[in-house]
Amino acid sequence: MKYTVTFIPDQITTEVEAGKSLLHAANSAGIGIKSSCGSEGTCGRCKVKVIQGKYLYNEKFSSILPQKHRKAGFILACKAYVEDNLTVEIPLESRLDEHQVLLEDKQGILAEKNIPILNGYTLDPLCKKIQLTMDAPNLTEIISDASRLEAELSKQADIKKPVIGLPLLSQLAETLRKGDWQVTVTIAYNGRDYEIVRVEPGHDIKPCYGIAVDIGTTTVVASLVDMERGLSIDKLGTYNRQAKLGDDVVSRMIHCSSEQNGLEELQHLVIQTINDLISKLLARNNLSHNDIGIMVTSSNTTMTHLFLGLHPKYIRLEPYVPTATFTPVVKGKELGLNIHPEGLVYSFPAVASYVGGDIVSGVLFTNISKKEELTLFIDIGTNGEIVLGNQDWLISCACSAGPAFEGGGITYGTRAMKGAIERVEIDKDTFEVKVSTIDSAKATGICGSGLIDCIAKMHQVGIIDRTGAFQDTESRRVQITHDDKLFILVWKEESGIGKDIYISENDIKNLIRSKGAVFAGIQSLLKTLQLEIELIDKILIAGGFGNYLNISDAIRIGLLPDLPIEKYEFVGNTSLKGAELALISKEAWNHAEIIGKMMTYLELSVGNLFMDEFMQAIFLPHTDLKLFPSVELHANL
Amino acid sequence: MKYTVTFIPDQITTEVEAGKSLLHAANSAGIGIKSSCGSEGTCGRCKVKVIQGKYLYNEKFSSILPQKHRKAGFILACKAYVEDNLTVEIPLESRLDEHQVLLEDKQGILAEKNIPILNGYTLDPLCKKIQLTMDAPNLTEIISDASRLEAELSKQADIKKPVIGLPLLSQLAETLRKGDWQVTVTIAYNGRDYEIVRVEPGHDIKPCYGIAVDIGTTTVVASLVDMERGLSIDKLGTYNRQAKLGDDVVSRMIHCSSEQNGLEELQHLVIQTINDLISKLLARNNLSHNDIGIMVTSSNTTMTHLFLGLHPKYIRLEPYVPTATFTPVVKGKELGLNIHPEGLVYSFPAVASYVGGDIVSGVLFTNISKKEELTLFIDIGTNGEIVLGNQDWLISCACSAGPAFEGGGITYGTRAMKGAIERVEIDKDTFEVKVSTIDSAKATGICGSGLIDCIAKMHQVGIIDRTGAFQDTESRRVQITHDDKLFILVWKEESGIGKDIYISENDIKNLIRSKGAVFAGIQSLLKTLQLEIELIDKILIAGGFGNYLNISDAIRIGLLPDLPIEKYEFVGNTSLKGAELALISKEAWNHAEIIGKMMTYLELSVGNLFMDEFMQAIFLPHTDLKLFPSVELHANL
Repeated sequence: MKYTVTFIPDQITTEVEAGKSLLHAANSAGIGIKSSCGSEGTCGRCKVKVIQGKYLYNEKFSSILPQKHRKAGFILACKAYVEDNLTVEIPLESRLDEHQVLLEDKQGILAEKNIPILNGYTLDPLCKKIQLTMDAPNLTEIISDASRLEAELSKQADIKKPVIGLPLLSQLAETLRKGDWQVTVTIAYNGRDYEIVRVEPGHDIKPCYGIAVDIGTTTVVASLVDMERGLSIDKLGTYNRQAKLGDDVVSRMIHCSSEQNGLEELQHLVIQTINDLISKLLARNNLSHNDIGIMVTSSNTTMTHLFLGLHPKYIRLEPYVPTATFTPVVKGKELGLNIHPEGLVYSFPAVASYVGGDIVSGVLFTNISKKEELTLFIDIGTNGEIVLGNQDWLISCACSAGPAFEGGGITYGTRAMKGAIERVEIDKDTFEVKVSTIDSAKATGICGSGLIDCIAKMHQVGIIDRTGAFQDTESRRVQITHDDKLFILVWKEESGIGKDIYISENDIKNLIRSKGAVFAGIQSLLKTLQLEIELIDKILIAGGFGNYLNISDAIRIGLLPDLPIEKYEFVGNTSLKGAELALISKEAWNHAEIIGKMMTYLELSVGNLFMDEFMQAIFLPHTDLKLFPSVELHANL
Repeated sequence: MKYTVTFIPDQITTEVEAGKSLLHAANSAGIGIKSSCGSEGTCGRCKVKVIQGKYLYNEKFSSILPQKHRKAGFILACKAYVEDNLTVEIPLESRLDEHQVLLEDKQGILAEKNIPILNGYTLDPLCKKIQLTMDAPNLTEIISDASRLEAELSKQADIKKPVIGLPLLSQLAETLRKGDWQVTVTIAYNGRDYEIVRVEPGHDIKPCYGIAVDIGTTTVVASLVDMERGLSIDKLGTYNRQAKLGDDVVSRMIHCSSEQNGLEELQHLVIQTINDLISKLLARNNLSHNDIGIMVTSSNTTMTHLFLGLHPKYIRLEPYVPTATFTPVVKGKELGLNIHPEGLVYSFPAVASYVGGDIVSGVLFTNISKKEELTLFIDIGTNGEIVLGNQDWLISCACSAGPAFEGGGITYGTRAMKGAIERVEIDKDTFEVKVSTIDSAKATGICGSGLIDCIAKMHQVGIIDRTGAFQDTESRRVQITHDDKLFILVWKEESGIGKDIYISENDIKNLIRSKGAVFAGIQSLLKTLQLEIELIDKILIAGGFGNYLNISDAIRIGLLPDLPIEKYEFVGNTSLKGAELALISKEAWNHAEIIGKMMTYLELSVGNLFMDEFMQAIFLPHTDLKLFPSVELHANL
């Protein structure tokens, strides 16, 4: 007997067998519902409300929800079973989708594209749980405990010759007997073989979990992934504690070389940062570190070295050689990570010292290397990493953009956080300013997208010329100090920091150098391959611009190529998403290794190509205006 | 230009190119010469004397030999080069062969057979050194250090995708640069892949070494193996320190279960025992623990469990299930072994709780599973382990023989050591006794072969009957105490312990039970397969009988089947030899795993077969005299 279940407000209808849970129904309708107890009715995260129709409910579990929710009609989706055609409301807080902001395109503003994690790959997690039931030994059938386990794994799960380490073996005899020859085995792929990470007595029905981590130079974000459903069920970010020993990769590399135990110190700090995130994710999902059998990290090459305890010395010295681009899969205990001690830790392969695993992860996730169309992938952080290619070839480079777009070296620069100015409007006659801030809070600084907007608009209305120099303008917002010129964006009275928030001429020159470096990098790749800009089919913008990037403005200042806006996509933190993808798809991980191998690296410091391009690019938008046909210049400048 | 080199006293002649060293010549003649410095001229162990002919000698190294040796004409074989037809004397102390006793067959006494380690397998060591020279990186060719190393290993040694662990990786950058892009890489096979164990700067010409260890319940023997030449270059044995917590495997298993930390204690003691042996071997061969990249151990199943820290609890309890018969390859550091921390440690696979890796090692080394002929393999220690089979099938069993043949439970029983009585003659008329002891020292006790001899002769001359009971005989050597009867073998005045050395009626009954258990085990295997004793083509006797075993006597008491003496071979400590073989031949190791899998185990406690056979076997030689047609019985008994 089948019934239809309609979910609102989505208005998605699905057909399910009588007796299936509402959680099951939502999953088969493609709607992600939060759940971390494996349908045991204990986490209370899958609350829904049945608007119409009959259902069977296991009242035993109803007390898990607070009374006020119960009174409002909420029930646990995992303990309610279909008995009728139903209409079910899924409240916002029970939903998995964290990207409420969908694609919208108004005035060239691009929101982050919501791409599902698997993105075309097969769900085949790097780590799985397998429930085994075996016969007890007797005098006529006395194979060893380990051989018995192996035989059942082969028979019931087609896993042949798994790696079994000593720590696991030393507990095996007691575990098998404690579970009366029923056990739950967690196996993880180590890049060569399947490895038994954990054996628990009895049949544990909790799903298998993994952790994906994007280890950024500045911020670290961890995602808790339900390996069976292939969904991120929780996420948390924080600042990289290494920052106290240096803001960027170069200062951290110097710390490693100049301080005794500098490397150990930095490794310890990043492990601490990650462990804190994991602890919080575990606590709020009622999990233990032993439940995490696998972790995939994605980071730039220097961060990967520091994470693994490899000295980054030669990354900084010409010819910029990392110790390893393909690093070994290690065990949690080797690094002191807060996961199962025998759990496996993958690090994304890198291409070179300055094109790291975070970029490979991004290329993997965005499927560039699986499509015919020529794609330009740009990740703008302290370094601008640029990849150009398609299914047949990939070329990459890194240009020292400096930290300007992340707010570094800019007087009131800030990261994309609450209160950061992300858009700026300037009246062309009065030069009066209107700013939009993240979460509409009182302005505290200017983030990357705000800075781009700001320069574009200041140039458009004639406050600065093509070199970024301030022009003589009649505006109370322009102020001149003994060594700089300032343009006030937010008056002290309206700002959230009790001071005027301005952008200075020096700030602008810094930004122009940064944007020039990125554009020169793009041009260098194209010229190396003798390709014209127009051949690019798609441009993907990854990284730290917050949720929005004003593409028109970015083109107007000459940061991005002057191509139709519909060719652009803002793909967000693809470093993290690629790590999530690798966790749940062995096929995807294998492809990451192929990407790492197939991608060519163009070292920009060889020859004059990059420097020539850079010198042309430190104008608004560029020396060669033919490259920016759509940009109308202010008549006077 | 080629010359002939004749080695004396062997009178073996070989032909070598001019300019080759005498060490090289000896090796190609199949004569093992001691050498542990890799022909660097520093260890001084390869001393030889040229009797005739011209040679070139690098005098620089002559001072390594003591003056008196130099005066006697000795030179280093590794630094003397062929320029003429030569006659070269190799003194005993420079020879590798430790079995000076060659096969001889007089009066049924069998000496240990001297079988070369490889015994037909291909020399392909589990661990090798590879010298690599690579190009330094430059800006146009900037692959990572690890990838550069991998590429050269693939190109120069055809090693693909080796495992490289973090500890090695963390030192790699500095090592490569210190060696100016010349390095010596030690790689070891881990059962699945090759693994890089060590990278040294520069080109190290020392050979690669491995350690083979026979971990016996009572004694532990370690052998230092030159992996390139495939030769054991030094050997050392000692008592297993675990003995202080229990004499046999059962008492040690009980210690594990009854004492808190009992397992840790026993593991620690055996590791200490092995480490001491290794330290001494390293010191006297001028090597460091880092020079040892691999170790293969062979032991019974309980000893393997204790060595690896696996609890043996269920080995002792019905249905006698070990945690593992195939144990993982682990790293030296995991067990705290005195080898390179990243060096690999193999343990021989076992068949069952009471047929262990030592037996698999013995079957491997003696090639039973590669031959058509039906072979019976018997290792008599505390347990008698018996294997029957050929290339098509192998069946094994274990019978609790008790420690009698190792001297346990026998009043003056002792191991095969200096002063142990190993042969006994009794005058049939006077009952006067003549004993032979090991090293002809004053008698201190009776070892296994001596005990067998003793019972056989006592029965032959009529001192005991077929049940082992003392007969009324007129002899001053027979004495009667309140609860036992004694037969004095050595008078106090002639013994090395200041007391009469005797064998008592109880001793003899113990021995008869032991020999009965072994023979009943053999019969059980044969009857299970419905085979007649006569079908056995060869009988191999392994284990602790010292250097000699009197086969005729062993048949006469009914310990061994009554088959022609030429079918017997005494093969010595095959557990150690199999471990040495596995070290130097990957093919052999792989075959050991096949043996472990193909061998069937017959549990003698199931059914009545064994007990029926045992009851028939506790007579001299047996209840069924048709089984011992060659044994003439004393008329009166």
